[in-house]
Amino acid sequence: MKTLSVIGIGAGDPDYLTMQAVKALNRVDVFFLMDKGPAKSKLMDLRREICQRYIVDRTYRFVEAYSPERQRGELDYAASVEELNRAKQATFERLINDELSDGECAGFLVWGDPALYDSTVRILQAIVDAGRCAFEFEVIPGITSVQALAARHKVALNDIGGSLEITTGRRLAAGQVGDASSVVVMLDAEDAYRQVSDPDTHIYWGAYVGTPDEILIAGRLGDVADDIEATRKAARQANGWIMDSYLLRKP
Amino acid sequence: MKTLSVIGIGAGDPDYLTMQAVKALNRVDVFFLMDKGPAKSKLMDLRREICQRYIVDRTYRFVEAYSPERQRGELDYAASVEELNRAKQATFERLINDELSDGECAGFLVWGDPALYDSTVRILQAIVDAGRCAFEFEVIPGITSVQALAARHKVALNDIGGSLEITTGRRLAAGQVGDASSVVVMLDAEDAYRQVSDPDTHIYWGAYVGTPDEILIAGRLGDVADDIEATRKAARQANGWIMDSYLLRKP
Repeated sequence: MKTLSVIGIGAGDPDYLTMQAVKALNRVDVFFLMDKGPAKSKLMDLRREICQRYIVDRTYRFVEAYSPERQRGELDYAASVEELNRAKQATFERLINDELSDGECAGFLVWGDPALYDSTVRILQAIVDAGRCAFEFEVIPGITSVQALAARHKVALNDIGGSLEITTGRRLAAGQVGDASSVVVMLDAEDAYRQVSDPDTHIYWGAYVGTPDEILIAGRLGDVADDIEATRKAARQANGWIMDSYLLRKP
Repeated sequence: MKTLSVIGIGAGDPDYLTMQAVKALNRVDVFFLMDKGPAKSKLMDLRREICQRYIVDRTYRFVEAYSPERQRGELDYAASVEELNRAKQATFERLINDELSDGECAGFLVWGDPALYDSTVRILQAIVDAGRCAFEFEVIPGITSVQALAARHKVALNDIGGSLEITTGRRLAAGQVGDASSVVVMLDAEDAYRQVSDPDTHIYWGAYVGTPDEILIAGRLGDVADDIEATRKAARQANGWIMDSYLLRKP
């Protein structure tokens, strides 16, 4: 039997790895790496650092695979992600069939937690359901950028007895957000916090949280929105990419 | 200067501890323990096990404090929690003043993540704001029961591009839930999932997730709601307490 381990490696700081993740790393024979885009080399280096730091007395190999890009512009978002996931599924099947031997364990190193805005688990379930590839897999949770953000700002995610909504910049910009007193926004490419009408909303923003490049800004939205917009623009230019998120708290 | 470390120790399995949490444990001189109720002795034992397993070549002490109970019935929920937090604040101030020396570090071991449905960070911020106690504090994120639940069910928390709402059983029972395609419910004392009108909703339920007592049930709500209700009733009777949560996914 082939086994796969989907390992959440946390939001950037190698110290975010759990003991469970470290044990899982030490069972892996081959790591499948799927990174792409401008952050690729930095993220690759971080993965190699994690493996070097935590894997003891064991040989392992890396296999890099072409990771398809999402088609932009033509389809709606969910349809384009589904299309992307079908292409990824074919890539995963090829990796499992060609690059993993019986009795071996393959590892997927997922930033943050595999359960939050990551497709690896969904794709593996689709492959299992299709029945064309035989394997078992496990999922190891990891610290998300949302949790790192809250910890670094020393703030609770929820109000007392209140709800927390975790959503995307796309949905915030489209007004598709409920009335939770706390909203966390991820994957915001377009400064969607500018669409929030109440300037007394409190924002806790962070980029590259948990890494040496970490930037944190917090305050009344009406006071700090310009600063956040300028800071994230400069950071994206300086680093070639940005990984940020924020918590909005109603006044 | 006195320092405090609010350490998320994850959702039950000692392997959920992060490397950052282990490092923080090894800086602590005194652990403040605030447990109460029927789960107290079990949770105490788990904390002692975590300290014994991870703290190396270092002496430390435990200080148990009376942890006030929430007043039930009289006030509304937020008001009663605020009242409780004022009482806890007085307890924390006494602990910091009387049980922690200058130059020492105190640790609070929080189940799950200190940012999610836990009051420790909020209370410490209130003490800092009041200015009656001088200390510095840090927050270490931990794996929540929500993440453990998703990992054990091997399911993503969010739909593709969709929102996730994390809320309480109280709010679900009161109909105070938005239209997110995925809803996670915590702190449900009253089987609030029975209030969900669409029997085609999919539920992923788990109790004591990550521990040897773990129970998992998943399926169409119309098919499994009775089973979940009977199972959680029996588990609560057998253990004297229950710690469970669930994910609801719209059909």
